[in-house]
Amino acid sequence: MAGSVGLQRVIEPPGVLPQAAWRLDASPEIGPDEVRIRVRRLNLDAASFRQLAEKHGGDGAKVRAEVLDIVATRGKMHNPVTGSGGMLIGVVEEVGPESPLGVEPGDRVATLVSLTLTPLRITDDLRDWDGLSEQVPADGTAILFGRSIVGVLPGDLPAELALAVYDVCGAPALVDRVARQYRDPTVLVLGGAGKSGSLSLAAAKRAGARTTAIVVSEAERDALAGAGVADEIAIADARNPVEVAEKAQADITVVCVDVPGCEHGAILATKPGGTVIFFSMATSFPAAALGAEGLAADVTMLVGNGYVPGHAAFAVDLLRTTPAVRALFEKRIAGD
Amino acid sequence: MAGSVGLQRVIEPPGVLPQAAWRLDASPEIGPDEVRIRVRRLNLDAASFRQLAEKHGGDGAKVRAEVLDIVATRGKMHNPVTGSGGMLIGVVEEVGPESPLGVEPGDRVATLVSLTLTPLRITDDLRDWDGLSEQVPADGTAILFGRSIVGVLPGDLPAELALAVYDVCGAPALVDRVARQYRDPTVLVLGGAGKSGSLSLAAAKRAGARTTAIVVSEAERDALAGAGVADEIAIADARNPVEVAEKAQADITVVCVDVPGCEHGAILATKPGGTVIFFSMATSFPAAALGAEGLAADVTMLVGNGYVPGHAAFAVDLLRTTPAVRALFEKRIAGD
Repeated sequence: MAGSVGLQRVIEPPGVLPQAAWRLDASPEIGPDEVRIRVRRLNLDAASFRQLAEKHGGDGAKVRAEVLDIVATRGKMHNPVTGSGGMLIGVVEEVGPESPLGVEPGDRVATLVSLTLTPLRITDDLRDWDGLSEQVPADGTAILFGRSIVGVLPGDLPAELALAVYDVCGAPALVDRVARQYRDPTVLVLGGAGKSGSLSLAAAKRAGARTTAIVVSEAERDALAGAGVADEIAIADARNPVEVAEKAQADITVVCVDVPGCEHGAILATKPGGTVIFFSMATSFPAAALGAEGLAADVTMLVGNGYVPGHAAFAVDLLRTTPAVRALFEKRIAGD
Repeated sequence: MAGSVGLQRVIEPPGVLPQAAWRLDASPEIGPDEVRIRVRRLNLDAASFRQLAEKHGGDGAKVRAEVLDIVATRGKMHNPVTGSGGMLIGVVEEVGPESPLGVEPGDRVATLVSLTLTPLRITDDLRDWDGLSEQVPADGTAILFGRSIVGVLPGDLPAELALAVYDVCGAPALVDRVARQYRDPTVLVLGGAGKSGSLSLAAAKRAGARTTAIVVSEAERDALAGAGVADEIAIADARNPVEVAEKAQADITVVCVDVPGCEHGAILATKPGGTVIFFSMATSFPAAALGAEGLAADVTMLVGNGYVPGHAAFAVDLLRTTPAVRALFEKRIAGD
């Protein structure tokens, strides 16, 4: 098992898995069950990019310098403040003889595991990136282990679009699974106009749920209104628990807002016996656990697992069959 | 709703719930649906006490001074590093005319909500506490809101024992609920010799599960072996994922170890389709979410909600009917 989960790439501290490691060995030579990817583009996790952009007051050059510094220091794009990473796309360059991933040199792929555990080397100083969006054109190499997940890019979608969908594809798949455990559920999505939020709404709608979205602004409301995936849309600050709970009471609440402090609103807005699914990397474990206890809230709280079997194909299918959601994604990629 | 969840006690920042607040108003005058408790004893959360003890190198006087400082600064015993609190016992002093809690002046009670959201004032400088254990004799006042949980202390158990059980009573109740969703499950408990761990094992056993405990030392193994709640006991470092996964593969894994870094071992030790329940306040949300994704692990991950209806009575009943588990608790209270 040691090799398949990448222990051989961990430099410090010893004994932990690559995601928990402070520093990885990102050298491009591969082991027998590894795969080397020639990197074309990184997609930074929304919480990570937001933290970097706010820290540097929107100065793209400083954001770029810090991303380069993180990758050089840690051997991976693992934001030490948010604990999150993102994903990448590239072309398969070399496949070890014992790799079980089923890819071949030349395949255009997206990695479906987080950048927080992917050995990464940047070789172009990110010179084609302005530091102003989470989509980062890049050249370099990345390593995949035996136990990993990789998706060959669909031929009918632009690479940027596929990457953006793959980045959040765990969310709609898990929403689908949970919604089908309830009878005629109501589903509330905090941050419904974003990537994971709009796909979660689409998944809930397809599973037969009645859907409510909470968004932060009139612009987001108008953008989402045309998508046809939210039966109701309310404008509220997701960090204000009383405001959120007054807008909706749901069987299932999905947190897709990439700012801290949304745990209590989600718990208060969920009916007894309901489920809260936390997808935001800004979620605080103690705030969720102690918040539910403090409110005497009998709700099931799920850590949003980014992996559900078949998640990538499920999300791509949602995008193909919901043109308005695709339009939301395209607008976002264009730098909205 | 504003009053029932204690918004009137939040000083800063405005608009958040008491648990999320930096500072609460702990003044002893009560509102119409509040209850004032005369405090007798605090039970600090294990992660919080450990952090304070390690920070001060086991110097009890410094630990006591910092606890006093936290309570004076924040108006609650909310450790800013661990984000956790604990519980308290005391005597009901005054009940507002609109309180729904059903208690009367003179009742000996334990608060079943976290100290992180309980307005608290200490008036005795904790002079009877040596700073060397998580059980803190104290005098002062605490406030309960309308939407809260309070348990009258059982007459047949010493107060310290009841408090220690109430502190972790969410764990066995949730383990029971999850175990009954599986057929003939195997349940693995990381940290099986501790308070929440031993009660979780007892609950799993009663639900018909086959149980395995992972403990950190031979002393813990020997202490737990006599309790009859673990079918197998293995010694391992819960922070070493490969070691944990080699010891057991379970349908349900329960994390009760109050140190950071146990997420990946728990995920690796859980079978596909299984459930991980995180009860440790030292759990990192991103480590859990990204770890499962990085390992392509199709497991359900639950934030251990400290509230399940009937949890206090359930835990007390487990203790009464499992004398060896009661003995573990008594040993721990005695300062083991």
